[in-house]
Amino acid sequence: MNTIPTLLTIGELLVEFVSREKGCGLERVTAFDGPFPSGAPAIFLDQAARMGAPTRMIGAVGRDGFGRNLKARLEADGVDTRHIGESETLTTGTAFVSYYDDGTRTFIFHLAGTAADASRFDEAMLPKGEIVLHVSASSLGSAPLRRAIMQATESVLARGGRLSLDPNARPELMRDRESREALENLLARSHFLMPSVSDLDFLFPGLSTEAAIDRLLAMQAEIVAVKKGAEGALLVDRGERHLYAPHAVEEVDPTGAGDGFCGTLMALLLQGRPLEEAGRMANAAGAIAVTRRGPMEGNSTPQEICAFLNAESEKDRKT
Amino acid sequence: MNTIPTLLTIGELLVEFVSREKGCGLERVTAFDGPFPSGAPAIFLDQAARMGAPTRMIGAVGRDGFGRNLKARLEADGVDTRHIGESETLTTGTAFVSYYDDGTRTFIFHLAGTAADASRFDEAMLPKGEIVLHVSASSLGSAPLRRAIMQATESVLARGGRLSLDPNARPELMRDRESREALENLLARSHFLMPSVSDLDFLFPGLSTEAAIDRLLAMQAEIVAVKKGAEGALLVDRGERHLYAPHAVEEVDPTGAGDGFCGTLMALLLQGRPLEEAGRMANAAGAIAVTRRGPMEGNSTPQEICAFLNAESEKDRKT
Repeated sequence: MNTIPTLLTIGELLVEFVSREKGCGLERVTAFDGPFPSGAPAIFLDQAARMGAPTRMIGAVGRDGFGRNLKARLEADGVDTRHIGESETLTTGTAFVSYYDDGTRTFIFHLAGTAADASRFDEAMLPKGEIVLHVSASSLGSAPLRRAIMQATESVLARGGRLSLDPNARPELMRDRESREALENLLARSHFLMPSVSDLDFLFPGLSTEAAIDRLLAMQAEIVAVKKGAEGALLVDRGERHLYAPHAVEEVDPTGAGDGFCGTLMALLLQGRPLEEAGRMANAAGAIAVTRRGPMEGNSTPQEICAFLNAESEKDRKT
Repeated sequence: MNTIPTLLTIGELLVEFVSREKGCGLERVTAFDGPFPSGAPAIFLDQAARMGAPTRMIGAVGRDGFGRNLKARLEADGVDTRHIGESETLTTGTAFVSYYDDGTRTFIFHLAGTAADASRFDEAMLPKGEIVLHVSASSLGSAPLRRAIMQATESVLARGGRLSLDPNARPELMRDRESREALENLLARSHFLMPSVSDLDFLFPGLSTEAAIDRLLAMQAEIVAVKKGAEGALLVDRGERHLYAPHAVEEVDPTGAGDGFCGTLMALLLQGRPLEEAGRMANAAGAIAVTRRGPMEGNSTPQEICAFLNAESEKDRKT
């Protein structure tokens, strides 16, 4: 009997093009690589599937090369794609990213009017059994996706399911009051919260990380994971507290690392792994992700994560 | 006193990404180059400006790197860009193209919901003096652009202006009855018609090229230029008829070659050059365009075209 809850996501499926050159600002003609499978909820779920969680994605792609690329990757990694629609008339959503030397990046998203924001939710799309609906706040900037996500939220909660939220509130994708309100709504009702430090600054301007975590634990949250980027991660529930030191890796492409962290953490927690271990694996998955170019290319298997952690502890012994 | 009519276009401004590898079908991860300035009306007008015609473009880009890239190129080449809007909320339109070994290509366009199809027309945008409005039928698949183009058409004709039409009816961009009707409407009212042989097949299925040209000359058309691709070009008015042999060039990237042909032809005709010469220059401009990678990168100056034609006649003398 399968007693592991299914991780469900609903949101944008994108392909991403990454400039080889830094500092081009998406303005100069230069070399790009792509189409890399992307979209925060898709990266999250692909990683969760690799970690052995039952997963299902609700979303849409165009009936084009980009869409075939995306679906093939997710299927190969074990994601249930039966509710990823293929639009005859809309093309697959895209994103472009280019880095600067200081590590900052500039994005151009094509989501509106593409298949990426054309997903609709229907009760019949819900998997049987226990469900955890994971929402990436990047999806909330799109009115149709926001509507579908809020409908799915009500359905899942009404069935006794739980919510998981990555409040990655990109200013490029979240310009209006409605998206902010949806974010606050989900924040107050989620069992699992996985903000970055910049998300906490956006949500609780002026508060320290500790004070912000206290606020979150005073809501529905049972587990708060704070992604501190190059400073590692902090995992807190109502009893335990674990701080993970950062791994010293060469940063090649950090896009998607946060999603990989969240996917690893959620997949392991739902499979009953202890909090400390799930956080340690997630912290390593995030570190591996930044060393690889392409948002979903950084996703990893449990074997890769274990090998990485073994090599890291070997390094520690030697130094 | 400037007695040369202004060439006006209204339509999509895009940046284009071109795959380096052939046969990837926009599906496999591979290397691309971009953002190349593109959009059929923009390529046309950029070439016309290089050939010395007064030009103005009505359109829109996003306030992003892609948009800055496009406007900077058009301005550098002398296009009047005062009515190219910069959207705060919409991103610049994009296109992706990849070739197959047999010369066919696959496109993915992101036009709907981007700045590319957000242009509006207003009487006040019309230049003073005589106007020739050039329409690329690639723009007619978008409802907002089609509306703006049809409004501009009525205004220009009411002011005694003329129409020029490139009926490049891409199936990816023209799926509905409304776009087809707009195309038929413009076809019947244009003074300058510049179809490719595949456009003639699309417009007059089953008719020979000659019979199709007769149909066009029976409407408003005074000059019909048929782009025959690797077979050269045919230029017909009600008195003259000129056939241009193809130039033997290495085909690198044919996208935009038709637009460069049309831009050269129109710019020269409006500056009073003889039909035979304008066609010869246009045929050479098209040949130059296919040798360069990137849709607008193949545009050329009168000096480059003359140098090319001199080299070609040198080759002929030697063989």
